[in-house]
This record gives sequence, structure tokens and C-alpha cells, in this order.
Amino acid sequence: MAKDKQPRKPRAETPKGFRDYFGADVVERREMLAKISAVYERYGFDPLETSAVETVEALGKFLPDVDRPNEGVFGWQDEDGDWLALRYDLTAPLARVAAQFRNDLPSPYRRYAMGPVWRNEKPGPGRFRQFYQCDADTVGAPSVAADAEICAMLSDALEEVGIERGDYIIRVNNRKVLNGVMEVAGILDPSDPSKFEAERGIVLRAIDKLDRLGPLGVLALLGEGRKDESGDFTTGAGLTEAQAKVVMRFVMATTNIHDRMVERFFRPENPLPEPSELGSTLIGILFPDMLAISMSHPAELKVETLEYLSSIVGISETGRQGVEELEQIANLLLAQGYGPDRIRMDPSVVRGLGYYTGPVYEAELTFEIHDEKGRKRQFGSVAGGGRYDDLVKRFTGQAVPATGVSIGVDRLLAALRAKGRSGAQSQGPVVVTVMDRDRMADYMAMVGDLRRAGIRAEMYLGNPKNFGNQLKYADKRGSPIAIIQGGDEAAKGMVILKDLILGAKIAENATLEEWKDRPAQVEVPVAELVDAVKTMLALYESPAR
Amino acid sequence: MAKDKQPRKPRAETPKGFRDYFGADVVERREMLAKISAVYERYGFDPLETSAVETVEALGKFLPDVDRPNEGVFGWQDEDGDWLALRYDLTAPLARVAAQFRNDLPSPYRRYAMGPVWRNEKPGPGRFRQFYQCDADTVGAPSVAADAEICAMLSDALEEVGIERGDYIIRVNNRKVLNGVMEVAGILDPSDPSKFEAERGIVLRAIDKLDRLGPLGVLALLGEGRKDESGDFTTGAGLTEAQAKVVMRFVMATTNIHDRMVERFFRPENPLPEPSELGSTLIGILFPDMLAISMSHPAELKVETLEYLSSIVGISETGRQGVEELEQIANLLLAQGYGPDRIRMDPSVVRGLGYYTGPVYEAELTFEIHDEKGRKRQFGSVAGGGRYDDLVKRFTGQAVPATGVSIGVDRLLAALRAKGRSGAQSQGPVVVTVMDRDRMADYMAMVGDLRRAGIRAEMYLGNPKNFGNQLKYADKRGSPIAIIQGGDEAAKGMVILKDLILGAKIAENATLEEWKDRPAQVEVPVAELVDAVKTMLALYESPAR
Repeated sequence: MAKDKQPRKPRAETPKGFRDYFGADVVERREMLAKISAVYERYGFDPLETSAVETVEALGKFLPDVDRPNEGVFGWQDEDGDWLALRYDLTAPLARVAAQFRNDLPSPYRRYAMGPVWRNEKPGPGRFRQFYQCDADTVGAPSVAADAEICAMLSDALEEVGIERGDYIIRVNNRKVLNGVMEVAGILDPSDPSKFEAERGIVLRAIDKLDRLGPLGVLALLGEGRKDESGDFTTGAGLTEAQAKVVMRFVMATTNIHDRMVERFFRPENPLPEPSELGSTLIGILFPDMLAISMSHPAELKVETLEYLSSIVGISETGRQGVEELEQIANLLLAQGYGPDRIRMDPSVVRGLGYYTGPVYEAELTFEIHDEKGRKRQFGSVAGGGRYDDLVKRFTGQAVPATGVSIGVDRLLAALRAKGRSGAQSQGPVVVTVMDRDRMADYMAMVGDLRRAGIRAEMYLGNPKNFGNQLKYADKRGSPIAIIQGGDEAAKGMVILKDLILGAKIAENATLEEWKDRPAQVEVPVAELVDAVKTMLALYESPAR
Repeated sequence: MAKDKQPRKPRAETPKGFRDYFGADVVERREMLAKISAVYERYGFDPLETSAVETVEALGKFLPDVDRPNEGVFGWQDEDGDWLALRYDLTAPLARVAAQFRNDLPSPYRRYAMGPVWRNEKPGPGRFRQFYQCDADTVGAPSVAADAEICAMLSDALEEVGIERGDYIIRVNNRKVLNGVMEVAGILDPSDPSKFEAERGIVLRAIDKLDRLGPLGVLALLGEGRKDESGDFTTGAGLTEAQAKVVMRFVMATTNIHDRMVERFFRPENPLPEPSELGSTLIGILFPDMLAISMSHPAELKVETLEYLSSIVGISETGRQGVEELEQIANLLLAQGYGPDRIRMDPSVVRGLGYYTGPVYEAELTFEIHDEKGRKRQFGSVAGGGRYDDLVKRFTGQAVPATGVSIGVDRLLAALRAKGRSGAQSQGPVVVTVMDRDRMADYMAMVGDLRRAGIRAEMYLGNPKNFGNQLKYADKRGSPIAIIQGGDEAAKGMVILKDLILGAKIAENATLEEWKDRPAQVEVPVAELVDAVKTMLALYESPAR
């Protein structure tokens, strides 16, 4: 091959793991976030927009131990030696702001934030290195009333964007109850919390996988470990059978355990067990008290669940406190009318992040979608959060209680699309075609009139020679109407409106009865252009919006 | 000093050159951008949101010649060796997208983009390393109708956000005319454009400084150079007097030269010259033909200016083309009703960026503000842009004509604030105080009722022990009303509304007649809480909004 002396042309590529959003996608997200903002503001939350860049020191966790900090963040060294990085979430910047401006901000400080965050992770299908988060947090409120408020607000926000009641559930748990269970199981020593840290980590991650692995999978991870379908072995926490039972009894104390068992054991591919057989399954043996609870009506479960949880964490002070807090949250929510149809307690909620110290909560969409393999599955989690009382302390040395939620913006948008409730079928513009290059000023004047009347309109700005290209352009833009004025029309002071939607329908099905009497184009005096366009557009206005 | 064994606490600081936006600032910008978006969409522009990160290769200009690319961008090396960087504007990503998706996008492609950009520059007062831009561009439209459209749209956008007609002017020039002048002046050889490149750069930068340095300053920079007040010497372009006169005659062919001369020569600190003396000033000698033009009425200037420009660029083909294009733009704009009160030609507009190849435009706010030293000055430029036909070519090898504008979001916001037209006096929330910790559920229910009625409301979530702190909190939040229910009121089923705005006014001026008959607090039955709050809020609704 001959050597190419030309400088190589740069590749026109979105960097790996990043993406670009076009047109309707941008509008759709903007509209959804506007609705969420309105709810947050009604709750007294103020917007905060921090810089995208933080010092690595302020972000924490990701300190530059080698040459550069590449553990999960995008970082670089400043001229004056400081390490800077893109924020990886919206909570770390909030903690920094709460410490930095503590004398100026109201206390408690309710704030919401929306914006991109960046993760330096291997990109994969559906895994991006820049994505949107939408957070709301209350800093400086020790009372669990703040947690209850966030759960209520999350419920309102989901309904506001178009997730109907019954299509979602917010599940609440408390890390303190979890810690109580760990105490009872003998893997948390309140006098030396550093002991058994590794075991507790494995236990938390195992509980978090209940949905995916089922009770037996979790049980395996609590013990010796588990081999998955691909043959990979995950080391377990090494608990004894007695210890594992304590944890499992707790995990299964969930109000929707029944639904899950049905889902898991009654799958089409499995032989159908008799209802009476349930009692003899492993679950029935391990957790006999669960069945009674899970079979009764959810609305009556609150007290039973709390009593049941108390019986498990009995001897642990932390555990007892946790159960009390859950009860307070339930009461505060019920006082505002948020019952278990919207928000309920669920001991299997763990939330991965290490920094949670109290209540944790998660919003799950319960309607079914078809996954990439065509199988039905629940849509799953779209938001989560909890109480983290130690994040601000890193900066100030003083504990500052805080709690907050983060909505996965892209997942929620995907859910709205799956439910057909996304509002982003934005209308294409009316296109004024150019028949005569010397009369561009006339066409421009028409476009100006349409725009002044609030109608989305464009003049064709490409090379006007080929009229077919102009109509192809109008088609690509999703234009409802093309405006045409050749020399003949201009001489008469007339202009032609071509109904492109009707045109497309006729092309699709030329014999369609309902269209046969409607003209696909009309000629009107130039002075009546705006009114004629309005009349034609009105035919296609979606009654749903 | 004793050694500190504790790990050092991280500093809670916004990184140098970055900033955080709180509450009203976020709302204000969001509302302004929403208004601009609405105008852009009416013009048929579609939103585009590219990733914040680009490959350094795609960004161009800033290639990693040493260890890392730190010339103006924040960059870092990816695990697989690619250099990545934060975008420094919204045009480079558009060029990349236009090349990458050229088979899918409509052509011409009208797009707008809003978002932060990052510059790795020394931070200074008012100079930030992250700031917002708001761009609109048309890619693939060779006709200057696209440039005219952008100017009209910019005019509409400025009026939409609240800049009144007469408070702004959009000035249009054409790089081709400038190039024609350079040809005539003998510093551009069409057969070898690389010659005199340095000289032309100095000339462009000099013209760009006309506002700041005045004609004499520019003249000095065209010649040997100029010493500024601090004694620093800037090397000039080294033109002969004859060459410099060609350039100056062109630069001064501006329709508002008269205003500028008055401004410059009639400053209070200067002795007042007689009007007849003007003819004998240096300006009068250098540019006799200018005076006649600049003295006549701006609306009549179009033809004269064009004739005048033609006379200067006479022998240059490029220059002649440029003048013709300016005439087309003026005609297209006039056809839509955009006269010289909104958009006018001004040969002094240069726009710094090297990549412009045709029409350039700039929006200037003409009202006066007081600068940091209390002196009156015009607010100045808030937006600018032009035609750049070579940016997409970098990727594809094929020339793609493009033109676009960028609005300086922060400057425009500052202008709206200076004019008192910013809409960000957002109302604080109604605060429900906590008198009795055991009845939190009751207070929460009140807050819930208020929120459901669309009223911004909060329950106090701090430690409720000190009631004074609760009122201080309400004050800091800008609350209009505090809701109070102690044991006595609860027993009667009543609740107290405290009018905090009235309270503040009374505290300011206790004898104020107009307030004396209005009670600063009322007691109402709990069931009437929402209506009573609405009634009280209605008293303070600003009729202006």
C-alpha cells in the first residue's frame, strides 16, 4: 500500500460508553424532569446545581493512590497539583456544599438536584459512563419524619410523571433493623463494629439479590457459597445453619413474599405445586410464621410485620430502635393517606451503598414488560435512597443527619415509554418549499408570519433545485404540511398547502374510504395562509394531549 | 507543634474557578432557557444533547503534544490509551455529530443545544472554568438565508426573555468583505492564503478592539504597535499608512460611528469640542466620506453603506461577493419586518474565532449599566456567531456549510437582572411548626393537605424544642405564613396562621397606618386551613407576575 501523507482524519465517534440525545429524547426528559421539579418544589425543596467537577479530596473514596485516581471516576491533575474529577453522583457534592455553606443555608436544608454524573467503568450494553440522576435530600433533619416525607414525595413524583397507582410500590426498610438481625445472628458486635465486616458485606449483597436468586440462592450465599449457571463460584459468608436461619427469617418477613413465591414456584416452566404443598417446601419449613402473614391482606400487615420483626431483633437495642422508627414512618405516612398500596415495609430492601445508617427505601415498578428475550418480567427498581448520617461529618467532624432519594432518570423514562405515556411525539414543522430562488424573501416572509402565529415552521434551506428532495426533507422532519408557491400561484397571489399526513395515509392505503372526500392539497390566498394552516393542523391534534 | 495523627479532614471547597448555583439562580436560568427553547423550536430547530466528554481527536485544536493535552481543555487518558476531554464549546461536538450521523439527520439540520462547557484557563474575577452556552446552528445550508434566519431568531429570543426592542442591536458583517479589504490593503493574496497570516491575525484582533481602544488605538495596532496605560507594548501589524487607511476606512463604515464618536470625544472628562471641530479631528481627516453617512438617519443607510463598502473592496472578487451576501441578508430580514432598529450591518464586527468564513453577527445590549467602579457603560455583547463552512470537513473531507449563534447564558441573565426583568423571586414555603413532638403525624397531615392543594409547604424538620428557632428557620426560607397548633388549639380543633410578611413589615415600621387594621395572625378550624392559607397568600400575590 502506498503511504498516505495526508494527516489522518479524526474519527467522528461518540466516545465509548457515552451517547448523544436527539430531539424527542431531549424534550421527553426535560418534560419529565419539569414535572418532578414541580412536585419537589411543592414539598419545599430548593434546586441546587453544583459544578460537574470536584476535588478528588472532596469526593472521597477515590483517592489517587497510584499515578492517577481511576477507580471509578474520571480524574486528572490540575496545574497546581490538585486532583480534580467529574462527580460520580449528586450526594457527594451535596455533602461538600452542606459543609461549605453551613452558615448560610437554612437548617434543615431541603434540596433537589438534576444533572449528569460520570462513572469510569467498562461500558457495556445499557451501561453508560455518563447518565442523569435526579436527587432530593434533606440535610440536618434527625427525625424519621424527613424519611417519611421523601417517600411520600417520591410517590407523588411517580404519579405526576404518569406512573399510575398500582403500577409502583415504594418499599421501606431500616438498616438499624438489619444491624439488629446481624447482632442476633452473631455477626455484629456493637462494642467492636470492625469485627465481621467482610461477612456482613456478603450478607447484605446476598439479601440484595433475593429477587434474582430466590431464597435458596440467598441461603447458599449465607453459607459456604454458590455456583451459578456458568459454573462461577461466589464465596459465601460462612454462617452456620442457625445463623443463616436468623437472617433468612428476617429477609422473608416481607409483605409481598407470597407474590414472590407464587412467581418463583408457579412459573410456567416448573411443575405446578398444589397450594397445600407450599407448607412442605423448604420455605415453609424454614419460615413457618411467614406463611400466615404473607397470606393475609396487605393492609392488615403493618402491626403483624412489626411484631414479627421485633421478635427477631428482640435482644438488640439497635434493632428495637429500627423497628420503632419503621413504625413511626408508617404512622406518619398513613396520617397523610399513603397506605401499603403505595408505600410498604419490606425487610428485603438493603440498598447496596455502605453509607446508609437508618431507613432505606426503593421504588419498584410492578407492571410487566418483555425483556430482550421476549420473557415477561417486572420492570423493577427506578429509584432508591436512605438515611446517611455520616457524609457531612467527613468535612466538619460534626455529625449531620441527612436522608435522600435518587431517581434513575433513564430507567424511569424507559418505563414511561414502555407504558406508552411518554409525551414526546413532538410535531414536525410546517415546511415552506422554495420553488423560485429569486423569491426567497417572499418565502421567508411566509415563514415569519407562521412563526409569529406560534406555528412551528421552516423554509427549506438546502439546494432548492430538486423539488423531490424538498418533499423528502419534509418527510424526514415529520412535517404535517408543505407550503408551495410557484410562479403561477405567485401571479395570482395564491399559495398551495399540501397535507402530508393525509398524503402518507393515502399512499399507505389508497382505497381508504374515510379519506376519499378530503383533498390532499388546497389553494388559498396568501393573506389566508396562517388561518388555513391552523385549520389543517387542527385536524391532526391528538385529543390525548 | 504536636503531630496530628488524625487523618486530615478534606476541605469543603468548590474547586477553583468553578461555582455552585442555588435556588433562585437555578430557577431563573431554567426559565430563561425554556423561553429561548420555545423560540428555537418555533423556528424548526431540534434539541441535541451530546455527551460532555469527547475524544481529544474529535475536539481538534488541542492535540496531546506533550504528556497530556492541557491547552485550554480538561483532558485525561483512558485505560485503552485514548485521550478524552470535556467539551470546550457546543460547536465542536455538533461538527462531530453532523459527520457521524450524516446519513440519519435531515439536511439541512437545524439544531439547538444548551449546557455547560469547560475551559482549562486561569480562573479570575468573573472568569469561570465551567459555564453555560446556548447555541443554535444550521448545518448543510449554503444559502445566507440560513444566516438571516439565525439573526431573526436571535432577535426574537432576546425579546422573548425580556430584552425590549431598542435595548439591543444585532450587528452583522461578513468575513468575505473583510477579506476583500485585506486584499485591497495588500495583506491577502488569494493565490496564496498562507502569506501574511500573522499580519491578518493582528488586524482582526485590532478591529475587534475598536470599542475599547477607539480609532486611534486601532490605528496604532495596524502600524508599529501600541503602548497601553500600564506601559505594556503590543506589537502591531506593520502596515504602511496607505494600507492602514484602507482598513480604517472600512472599519469606520459603521452605521453607529456617529454615536461612538460622540461617546468617545464628548466624554465628560474631555474638553467639549465644537461640532464644527469634528471635521478637523483625525477621524474627520482620515474618513471624510464617513461623516456624511453617519450623520444621516440609520434607516436610510443600508444602500449607502453597501455602496460605500463596494467602493472599498472594489477590485476584490471575494469582497464583492461578501457585499452581495450582506445585501441579500438585509433584504431577507426586511421582508420579515426586521429593520435596522433590530438588526443592522456593521463592518466593525469581527468575531475572534478563526474558523468563520462568511457572515458574522453579534448581539449587543445597548442600555447602560454602572460598572464595578460606578461608571456608566453599555452592557455590551451577549451573543455572537457566524458561518463556518469547514468544521465538518475535518471529519469527512467534504465541505459542509454551517452557520450558528451562541448566547452567553450568564451574561444574558446578568442583563435581565440589571433590567429588573428576572422572574426569580420564588415564594418561600408555608412552614408548619412543630409544637408537640407526639403529634408530628397531625402536622404532617396538614402539610399534606396544603401540598395537595398546590401550595408550597413544609413541616419543620429540625429539633422542635426551641420555637424561636422554628420562626428563624421560616424567616430564612422566606416563608409567607407559619402554621401553629399547640395543645390548646388542638383541643379546640383550631389552628393559627401567622402572617410573616405582615409581621416583618410591622417590625420595620410599627406605626404604618395601612397595616394597623390587619391582624398579624388568625385562628381557624383545622378543616378550613387550606382555604385560609389561600386567602392570606392571595394578599401578597405580585400583580406583576
